Amino acid sequence: MVKCNWCFMRVRNIKNKDEILNNCEYVIKNPQDNRGKWQKVFSNKNPIYLEIGMGKGQFIINSALSNPNINYIGIEKSGSVLVQATRKIETIIPNLRFINADAKDIVDIFDKEISLIYLNFSDPWPKKRHAKRRLTSVNFLEKYDNICKGEKIIEMKTDNQLLFEYSLESFSNYGYIIKEISLDLLNSSINDVKTEYEEKFENKCKINYVKVVKYD
Amino acid sequence: MVKCNWCFMRVRNIKNKDEILNNCEYVIKNPQDNRGKWQKVFSNKNPIYLEIGMGKGQFIINSALSNPNINYIGIEKSGSVLVQATRKIETIIPNLRFINADAKDIVDIFDKEISLIYLNFSDPWPKKRHAKRRLTSVNFLEKYDNICKGEKIIEMKTDNQLLFEYSLESFSNYGYIIKEISLDLLNSSINDVKTEYEEKFENKCKINYVKVVKYD
Repeated sequence: MVKCNWCFMRVRNIKNKDEILNNCEYVIKNPQDNRGKWQKVFSNKNPIYLEIGMGKGQFIINSALSNPNINYIGIEKSGSVLVQATRKIETIIPNLRFINADAKDIVDIFDKEISLIYLNFSDPWPKKRHAKRRLTSVNFLEKYDNICKGEKIIEMKTDNQLLFEYSLESFSNYGYIIKEISLDLLNSSINDVKTEYEEKFENKCKINYVKVVKYD
Repeated sequence: MVKCNWCFMRVRNIKNKDEILNNCEYVIKNPQDNRGKWQKVFSNKNPIYLEIGMGKGQFIINSALSNPNINYIGIEKSGSVLVQATRKIETIIPNLRFINADAKDIVDIFDKEISLIYLNFSDPWPKKRHAKRRLTSVNFLEKYDNICKGEKIIEMKTDNQLLFEYSLESFSNYGYIIKEISLDLLNSSINDVKTEYEEKFENKCKINYVKVVKYD
Protein backbone atom coordinates (compact mmCIF):
# COMPACT_ATOMS: atom_id res chain seq x y z
CA MET A 1 0.00 0.00 0.00
CA VAL A 2 1.43 3.36 -1.00
CA LYS A 3 0.01 6.83 -0.66
CA CYS A 4 -0.52 9.25 -3.48
CA ASN A 5 2.14 11.91 -3.05
CA TRP A 6 -0.26 14.86 -3.07
CA CYS A 7 -3.78 13.83 -2.01
CA PHE A 8 -2.61 11.21 0.52
CA MET A 9 -5.30 8.78 -0.60
CA ARG A 10 -4.04 5.24 -0.49
CA VAL A 11 -3.22 3.59 -3.78
CA ARG A 12 -3.11 -0.19 -3.61
CA ASN A 13 -0.57 -1.74 -5.97
CA ILE A 14 -2.34 -4.46 -7.92
CA LYS A 15 0.22 -7.04 -9.00
CA ASN A 16 -1.65 -8.43 -12.00
CA LYS A 17 -2.90 -5.02 -13.14
CA ASP A 18 -1.49 -5.38 -16.64
CA GLU A 19 -3.32 -8.65 -17.15
CA ILE A 20 -6.59 -7.18 -15.86
CA LEU A 21 -6.32 -4.10 -18.06
CA ASN A 22 -5.42 -6.21 -21.10
CA ASN A 23 -8.55 -8.27 -20.64
CA CYS A 24 -10.88 -5.30 -20.05
CA GLU A 25 -12.83 -4.27 -23.12
CA TYR A 26 -13.11 -0.68 -21.85
CA VAL A 27 -9.35 -0.19 -21.82
CA ILE A 28 -7.97 0.68 -25.25
CA LYS A 29 -4.67 -1.01 -26.00
CA ASN A 30 -2.16 0.89 -28.19
CA PRO A 31 -4.33 4.01 -28.08
CA GLN A 32 -2.04 5.91 -30.47
CA ASP A 33 -3.31 3.60 -33.24
CA ASN A 34 -6.67 5.41 -33.00
CA ARG A 35 -5.18 8.89 -33.39
CA GLY A 36 -7.50 10.94 -35.60
CA LYS A 37 -10.17 8.22 -35.75
CA TRP A 38 -11.58 7.88 -32.24
CA GLN A 39 -15.13 8.26 -33.45
CA LYS A 40 -14.72 4.90 -35.18
CA VAL A 41 -14.05 3.32 -31.79
CA PHE A 42 -17.49 4.45 -30.66
CA SER A 43 -19.14 3.77 -34.05
CA ASN A 44 -20.92 7.13 -33.97
CA LYS A 45 -20.25 10.83 -34.52
CA ASN A 46 -21.12 12.02 -31.04
CA PRO A 47 -18.73 14.48 -29.38
CA ILE A 48 -15.87 13.07 -27.34
CA TYR A 49 -15.17 14.41 -23.85
CA LEU A 50 -11.83 13.61 -22.25
CA GLU A 51 -11.01 13.42 -18.54
CA ILE A 52 -7.29 13.71 -17.93
CA GLY A 53 -6.34 12.00 -14.68
CA MET A 54 -9.62 10.15 -14.20
CA GLY A 55 -8.49 8.37 -11.04
CA LYS A 56 -10.91 5.74 -9.79
CA GLY A 57 -13.46 6.68 -12.43
CA GLN A 58 -16.57 7.68 -10.50
CA PHE A 59 -16.91 11.01 -12.32
CA ILE A 60 -16.48 9.68 -15.84
CA ILE A 61 -18.57 6.55 -15.31
CA ASN A 62 -21.49 8.54 -13.91
CA SER A 63 -21.11 11.19 -16.61
CA ALA A 64 -21.21 8.50 -19.32
CA LEU A 65 -24.27 6.87 -17.77
CA SER A 66 -26.09 10.22 -17.57
CA ASN A 67 -25.21 11.38 -21.09
CA PRO A 68 -25.47 8.49 -23.57
CA ASN A 69 -25.13 10.88 -26.53
CA ILE A 70 -21.64 11.94 -25.51
CA ASN A 71 -18.58 9.69 -25.74
CA TYR A 72 -16.26 9.73 -22.74
CA ILE A 73 -12.59 8.81 -22.62
CA GLY A 74 -10.66 8.78 -19.37
CA ILE A 75 -6.89 8.78 -19.13
CA GLU A 76 -5.11 7.52 -16.02
CA LYS A 77 -1.38 7.04 -15.57
CA SER A 78 -1.58 4.57 -12.70
CA GLY A 79 -2.54 1.07 -13.84
CA SER A 80 -3.52 0.09 -10.30
CA VAL A 81 -5.90 3.05 -10.05
CA LEU A 82 -7.37 2.32 -13.46
CA VAL A 83 -8.11 -1.26 -12.41
CA GLN A 84 -10.26 0.13 -9.59
CA ALA A 85 -12.20 2.16 -12.15
CA THR A 86 -12.86 -0.90 -14.34
CA ARG A 87 -14.25 -2.74 -11.30
CA LYS A 88 -16.88 -0.03 -10.84
CA ILE A 89 -18.59 -0.78 -14.14
CA GLU A 90 -21.69 -2.83 -13.39
CA THR A 91 -23.54 -2.47 -16.68
CA ILE A 92 -22.66 -2.06 -20.34
CA ILE A 93 -21.62 1.54 -21.07
CA PRO A 94 -21.04 1.80 -24.82
CA ASN A 95 -20.00 5.47 -24.67
CA LEU A 96 -17.04 4.95 -22.32
CA ARG A 97 -13.37 4.03 -22.82
CA PHE A 98 -10.25 4.17 -20.67
CA ILE A 99 -6.62 4.72 -21.56
CA ASN A 100 -3.67 3.81 -19.36
CA ALA A 101 -1.26 6.58 -20.33
CA ASP A 102 0.58 9.63 -19.15
CA ALA A 103 -1.09 12.99 -19.90
CA LYS A 104 2.11 14.25 -21.49
CA ASP A 105 1.55 11.79 -24.35
CA ILE A 106 -1.95 12.94 -25.35
CA VAL A 107 -0.81 14.52 -28.61
CA ASP A 108 0.32 11.06 -29.76
CA ILE A 109 -3.13 9.67 -28.97
CA PHE A 110 -5.55 12.35 -30.24
CA ASP A 111 -5.64 14.73 -33.19
CA LYS A 112 -8.22 17.53 -33.16
CA GLU A 113 -11.11 15.31 -32.08
CA ILE A 114 -11.86 16.22 -28.44
CA SER A 115 -14.80 18.54 -27.72
CA LEU A 116 -14.25 19.12 -24.00
CA ILE A 117 -11.54 18.42 -21.42
CA TYR A 118 -12.17 17.74 -17.73
CA LEU A 119 -9.45 18.37 -15.19
CA ASN A 120 -10.69 17.13 -11.82
CA PHE A 121 -8.51 17.54 -8.74
CA SER A 122 -5.32 17.44 -10.75
CA ASP A 123 -1.97 17.12 -9.05
CA PRO A 124 -1.09 20.69 -7.95
CA TRP A 125 2.70 20.19 -8.29
CA PRO A 126 3.19 22.89 -5.66
CA LYS A 127 6.90 23.47 -6.20
CA LYS A 128 7.61 26.28 -8.63
CA ARG A 129 10.22 24.24 -10.51
CA HIS A 130 7.50 21.66 -11.26
CA ALA A 131 4.99 24.24 -12.55
CA LYS A 132 5.23 23.04 -16.14
CA ARG A 133 3.96 19.64 -15.01
CA ARG A 134 0.65 21.19 -13.93
CA LEU A 135 -2.12 20.23 -16.34
CA THR A 136 -3.00 23.90 -16.77
CA SER A 137 0.52 25.10 -17.64
CA VAL A 138 1.21 26.55 -21.09
CA ASN A 139 3.03 23.31 -21.74
CA PHE A 140 -0.28 21.43 -21.57
CA LEU A 141 -2.51 24.18 -23.00
CA GLU A 142 -0.45 23.88 -26.19
CA LYS A 143 -1.16 20.15 -26.27
CA TYR A 144 -4.90 20.80 -25.79
CA ASP A 145 -4.83 23.04 -28.88
CA ASN A 146 -3.72 20.02 -30.85
CA ILE A 147 -6.17 17.46 -29.52
CA CYS A 148 -9.32 19.62 -29.45
CA LYS A 149 -11.48 20.43 -32.42
CA GLY A 150 -13.14 23.81 -32.91
CA GLU A 151 -13.36 25.92 -29.80
CA LYS A 152 -11.43 24.64 -26.82
CA ILE A 153 -13.50 24.01 -23.67
CA ILE A 154 -12.03 23.03 -20.32
CA GLU A 155 -13.90 22.34 -17.09
CA MET A 156 -11.74 22.25 -14.00
CA LYS A 157 -12.38 21.63 -10.34
CA THR A 158 -9.93 21.63 -7.50
CA ASP A 159 -9.72 22.27 -3.79
CA ASN A 160 -6.15 23.48 -4.14
CA GLN A 161 -6.16 27.27 -3.93
CA LEU A 162 -2.72 27.81 -5.41
CA LEU A 163 -3.41 25.53 -8.37
CA PHE A 164 -6.70 27.34 -8.98
CA GLU A 165 -5.08 30.78 -8.89
CA TYR A 166 -2.27 29.60 -11.15
CA SER A 167 -4.73 28.02 -13.57
CA LEU A 168 -6.93 31.12 -13.86
CA GLU A 169 -3.89 33.23 -14.73
CA SER A 170 -2.62 30.58 -17.13
CA PHE A 171 -5.97 30.11 -18.92
CA SER A 172 -6.53 33.85 -19.17
CA ASN A 173 -3.07 34.66 -20.52
CA TYR A 174 -3.39 31.87 -23.09
CA GLY A 175 -6.62 33.34 -24.52
CA TYR A 176 -9.25 31.38 -22.62
CA ILE A 177 -12.37 33.23 -21.44
CA ILE A 178 -14.09 32.42 -18.15
CA LYS A 179 -17.62 31.28 -18.91
CA GLU A 180 -18.59 30.09 -15.43
CA ILE A 181 -16.79 30.17 -12.12
CA SER A 182 -17.54 29.21 -8.54
CA LEU A 183 -15.38 29.45 -5.44
CA ASP A 184 -17.78 27.12 -3.64
CA LEU A 185 -19.04 24.55 -6.11
CA LEU A 186 -21.12 22.53 -3.67
CA ASN A 187 -23.13 25.58 -2.64
CA SER A 188 -23.56 26.85 -6.18
CA SER A 189 -26.27 26.19 -8.74
CA ILE A 190 -23.81 24.34 -11.00
CA ASN A 191 -24.75 20.74 -11.70
CA ASP A 192 -21.87 18.70 -10.29
CA VAL A 193 -21.02 15.04 -10.96
CA LYS A 194 -18.86 14.13 -7.98
CA THR A 195 -15.48 12.43 -7.97
CA GLU A 196 -14.38 10.04 -5.22
CA TYR A 197 -12.00 12.68 -3.91
CA GLU A 198 -14.81 15.23 -3.75
CA GLU A 199 -17.09 12.93 -1.76
CA LYS A 200 -14.32 12.17 0.69
CA PHE A 201 -13.25 15.73 1.34
CA GLU A 202 -16.29 17.84 0.47
CA ASN A 203 -17.07 18.88 4.03
CA LYS A 204 -13.49 19.80 4.80
CA CYS A 205 -12.80 22.43 2.20
CA LYS A 206 -14.43 24.54 -0.50
CA ILE A 207 -14.17 23.33 -4.07
CA ASN A 208 -13.30 25.75 -6.84
CA TYR A 209 -14.76 25.30 -10.31
CA VAL A 210 -14.20 27.03 -13.60
CA LYS A 211 -15.34 26.51 -17.19
CA VAL A 212 -13.19 28.27 -19.78
CA VAL A 213 -13.47 28.54 -23.54
CA LYS A 214 -10.97 29.57 -26.21
CA TYR A 215 -12.39 30.45 -29.60
CA ASP A 216 -10.42 29.78 -32.78
CA MET B 1 -26.70 57.54 12.41
CA VAL B 2 -27.56 55.30 9.45
CA LYS B 3 -26.05 52.03 8.34
CA CYS B 4 -24.58 51.35 4.93
CA ASN B 5 -27.07 49.09 3.21
CA TRP B 6 -24.55 46.39 2.31
CA CYS B 7 -21.56 46.43 4.66
CA PHE B 8 -23.54 47.47 7.77
CA MET B 9 -20.83 49.90 8.81
CA ARG B 10 -22.34 52.95 10.39
CA VAL B 11 -22.34 56.14 8.36
CA ARG B 12 -22.78 59.28 10.42
CA ASN B 13 -24.70 62.02 8.64
CA ILE B 14 -22.66 65.19 8.90
CA LYS B 15 -25.01 68.17 8.69
CA ASN B 16 -22.52 70.77 7.45
CA LYS B 17 -20.77 68.33 5.11
CA ASP B 18 -21.22 70.56 2.05
CA GLU B 19 -19.55 73.47 3.81
CA ILE B 20 -16.66 71.28 4.98
CA LEU B 21 -16.14 69.81 1.52
CA ASN B 22 -16.34 73.24 -0.10
CA ASN B 23 -13.58 74.52 2.16
CA CYS B 24 -11.30 71.50 1.71
CA GLU B 25 -8.53 72.05 -0.82
CA TYR B 26 -8.33 68.32 -1.57
CA VAL B 27 -11.93 68.17 -2.78
CA ILE B 28 -12.29 69.28 -6.40
CA LYS B 29 -15.38 71.40 -7.01
CA ASN B 30 -17.08 71.07 -10.44
CA PRO B 31 -14.78 68.18 -11.38
CA GLN B 32 -16.22 67.96 -14.91
CA ASP B 33 -14.42 71.27 -15.65
CA ASN B 34 -11.14 69.36 -15.50
CA ARG B 35 -12.19 66.70 -17.99
CA GLY B 36 -9.24 65.89 -20.26
CA LYS B 37 -6.84 68.10 -18.28
CA TRP B 38 -6.45 66.48 -14.86
CA GLN B 39 -2.67 66.49 -15.10
CA LYS B 40 -2.85 70.29 -14.89
CA VAL B 41 -4.51 69.93 -11.49
CA PHE B 42 -1.42 68.14 -10.24
CA SER B 43 1.01 70.33 -12.23
CA ASN B 44 2.94 67.28 -13.43
CA LYS B 45 2.74 64.47 -15.96
CA ASN B 46 2.72 61.58 -13.51
CA PRO B 47 0.17 58.80 -14.04
CA ILE B 48 -3.23 59.19 -12.40
CA TYR B 49 -4.72 56.29 -10.43
CA LEU B 50 -8.43 56.41 -9.61
CA GLU B 51 -10.21 54.73 -6.70
CA ILE B 52 -13.93 54.46 -7.34
CA GLY B 53 -15.83 54.29 -4.06
CA MET B 54 -12.94 55.38 -1.83
CA GLY B 55 -14.98 55.37 1.36
CA LYS B 56 -13.18 56.79 4.39
CA GLY B 57 -9.97 57.14 2.41
CA GLN B 58 -7.42 55.06 4.28
CA PHE B 59 -6.36 53.14 1.19
CA ILE B 60 -5.94 56.11 -1.12
CA ILE B 61 -4.30 58.36 1.47
CA ASN B 62 -1.73 55.71 2.37
CA SER B 63 -1.18 54.87 -1.31
CA ALA B 64 -0.56 58.55 -2.10
CA LEU B 65 1.85 58.90 0.81
CA SER B 66 3.79 55.80 -0.29
CA ASN B 67 3.96 56.70 -3.98
CA PRO B 68 4.66 60.42 -4.45
CA ASN B 69 5.29 59.92 -8.18
CA ILE B 70 1.74 58.76 -8.81
CA ASN B 71 -1.30 61.06 -8.66
CA TYR B 72 -4.31 59.65 -6.84
CA ILE B 73 -7.94 60.65 -7.23
CA GLY B 74 -10.67 59.16 -5.06
CA ILE B 75 -14.37 59.30 -5.87
CA GLU B 76 -16.98 58.92 -3.16
CA LYS B 77 -20.71 59.40 -3.52
CA SER B 78 -21.45 60.02 0.14
CA GLY B 79 -20.50 63.51 1.28
CA SER B 80 -20.56 62.44 4.94
CA VAL B 81 -18.12 59.59 4.25
CA LEU B 82 -15.86 61.87 2.23
CA VAL B 83 -15.69 64.34 5.13
CA GLN B 84 -14.27 61.54 7.27
CA ALA B 85 -11.58 60.96 4.63
CA THR B 86 -10.60 64.64 4.60
CA ARG B 87 -10.18 64.54 8.38
CA LYS B 88 -7.57 61.78 8.08
CA ILE B 89 -5.12 64.01 6.21
CA GLU B 90 -2.47 65.14 8.69
CA THR B 91 0.21 66.38 6.34
CA ILE B 92 0.35 67.98 2.89
CA ILE B 93 -0.21 65.35 0.17
CA PRO B 94 0.25 67.11 -3.18
CA ASN B 95 -0.52 63.99 -5.23
CA LEU B 96 -4.02 63.45 -3.81
CA ARG B 97 -7.48 64.76 -4.70
CA PHE B 98 -11.05 63.80 -3.85
CA ILE B 99 -14.26 64.06 -5.83
CA ASN B 100 -17.75 63.94 -4.35
CA ALA B 101 -19.62 62.25 -7.20
CA ASP B 102 -21.47 59.16 -8.30
CA ALA B 103 -19.43 56.55 -10.19
CA LYS B 104 -21.98 56.55 -12.99
CA ASP B 105 -20.87 60.09 -13.90
CA ILE B 106 -17.15 59.34 -14.40
CA VAL B 107 -17.26 59.76 -18.18
CA ASP B 108 -18.30 63.38 -17.63
CA ILE B 109 -15.30 63.89 -15.36
CA PHE B 110 -12.45 62.07 -17.13
CA ASP B 111 -11.39 61.57 -20.73
CA LYS B 112 -8.71 58.94 -21.46
CA GLU B 113 -6.40 60.06 -18.69
CA ILE B 114 -6.57 57.37 -15.99
CA SER B 115 -3.76 54.80 -15.83
CA LEU B 116 -5.22 52.43 -13.23
CA ILE B 117 -8.57 51.90 -11.49
CA TYR B 118 -9.00 50.54 -7.97
CA LEU B 119 -12.25 48.90 -6.93
CA ASN B 120 -12.03 48.13 -3.23
CA PHE B 121 -14.92 46.35 -1.50
CA SER B 122 -17.45 47.71 -3.93
CA ASP B 123 -21.15 47.37 -3.27
CA PRO B 124 -22.04 43.82 -4.44
CA TRP B 125 -25.60 44.72 -5.46
CA PRO B 126 -26.59 41.08 -4.81
CA LYS B 127 -29.97 41.15 -6.55
CA LYS B 128 -29.80 40.05 -10.17
CA ARG B 129 -31.95 42.95 -11.33
CA HIS B 130 -29.35 45.34 -9.91
CA ALA B 131 -26.39 43.62 -11.63
CA LYS B 132 -25.77 46.52 -13.99
CA ARG B 133 -25.08 48.73 -10.99
CA ARG B 134 -22.07 46.60 -10.02
CA LEU B 135 -18.86 48.46 -10.76
CA THR B 136 -17.61 45.47 -12.78
CA SER B 137 -20.68 45.17 -15.03
CA VAL B 138 -20.33 45.75 -18.78
CA ASN B 139 -22.14 49.00 -18.12
CA PHE B 140 -19.13 50.27 -16.13
CA LEU B 141 -16.41 48.47 -18.13
CA GLU B 142 -17.56 50.53 -21.12
CA LYS B 143 -17.14 53.70 -19.08
CA TYR B 144 -13.63 52.62 -18.04
CA ASP B 145 -12.70 52.29 -21.73
CA ASN B 146 -13.48 55.99 -22.07
CA ILE B 147 -11.67 57.28 -19.02
CA CYS B 148 -8.49 55.17 -19.25
CA LYS B 149 -5.57 55.85 -21.52
CA GLY B 150 -3.62 53.09 -23.21
CA GLU B 151 -4.04 49.66 -21.71
CA LYS B 152 -6.80 49.37 -19.13
CA ILE B 153 -5.68 48.14 -15.69
CA ILE B 154 -8.06 47.36 -12.84
CA GLU B 155 -7.18 46.15 -9.36
CA MET B 156 -10.07 44.80 -7.36
CA LYS B 157 -10.47 43.40 -3.89
CA THR B 158 -13.58 42.11 -2.22
CA ASP B 159 -14.70 39.66 0.42
CA ASN B 160 -17.95 39.10 -1.43
CA GLN B 161 -17.72 35.75 -3.22
CA LEU B 162 -20.60 36.31 -5.61
CA LEU B 163 -19.32 39.73 -6.67
CA PHE B 164 -15.88 38.25 -7.23
CA GLU B 165 -17.18 35.37 -9.35
CA TYR B 166 -19.39 37.76 -11.33
CA SER B 167 -16.50 40.17 -11.84
CA LEU B 168 -14.07 37.51 -13.08
CA GLU B 169 -16.61 36.38 -15.69
CA SER B 170 -17.40 39.98 -16.62
CA PHE B 171 -13.73 41.04 -16.95
CA SER B 172 -12.85 37.93 -18.94
CA ASN B 173 -15.76 38.21 -21.36
CA TYR B 174 -14.96 41.88 -21.93
CA GLY B 175 -11.38 41.12 -23.00
CA TYR B 176 -9.50 41.62 -19.74
CA ILE B 177 -6.67 39.20 -18.93
CA ILE B 178 -5.97 38.07 -15.37
CA LYS B 179 -2.45 39.15 -14.47
CA GLU B 180 -2.53 38.32 -10.78
CA ILE B 181 -5.13 36.69 -8.57
CA SER B 182 -5.42 35.59 -4.97
CA LEU B 183 -8.29 33.96 -3.13
CA ASP B 184 -6.63 34.85 0.17
CA LEU B 185 -4.96 38.22 -0.19
CA LEU B 186 -3.75 38.54 3.39
CA ASN B 187 -1.87 35.23 3.20
CA SER B 188 -0.44 35.94 -0.23
CA SER B 189 2.80 37.61 -1.26
CA ILE B 190 0.89 40.54 -2.81
CA ASN B 191 1.73 43.91 -1.28
CA ASP B 192 -1.56 45.15 0.17
CA VAL B 193 -2.46 48.67 1.29
CA LYS B 194 -5.40 48.08 3.62
CA THR B 195 -8.78 49.78 3.61
CA GLU B 196 -10.75 50.50 6.79
CA TYR B 197 -13.19 47.74 5.87
CA GLU B 198 -10.36 45.28 5.43
CA GLU B 199 -8.85 46.03 8.81
CA LYS B 200 -12.22 45.65 10.51
CA PHE B 201 -13.16 42.35 8.90
CA GLU B 202 -9.85 40.77 7.90
CA ASN B 203 -9.95 37.98 10.48
CA LYS B 204 -13.54 37.09 9.69
CA CYS B 205 -13.32 36.21 6.02
CA LYS B 206 -10.88 35.70 3.19
CA ILE B 207 -10.28 38.57 0.82
CA ASN B 208 -10.20 38.00 -2.92
CA TYR B 209 -7.91 40.05 -5.12
CA VAL B 210 -7.45 40.32 -8.86
CA LYS B 211 -5.44 42.52 -11.21
CA VAL B 212 -6.69 42.51 -14.79
CA VAL B 213 -5.41 44.20 -17.94
CA LYS B 214 -7.03 44.88 -21.29
CA TYR B 215 -4.71 45.77 -24.14
CA ASP B 216 -5.81 48.09 -26.90
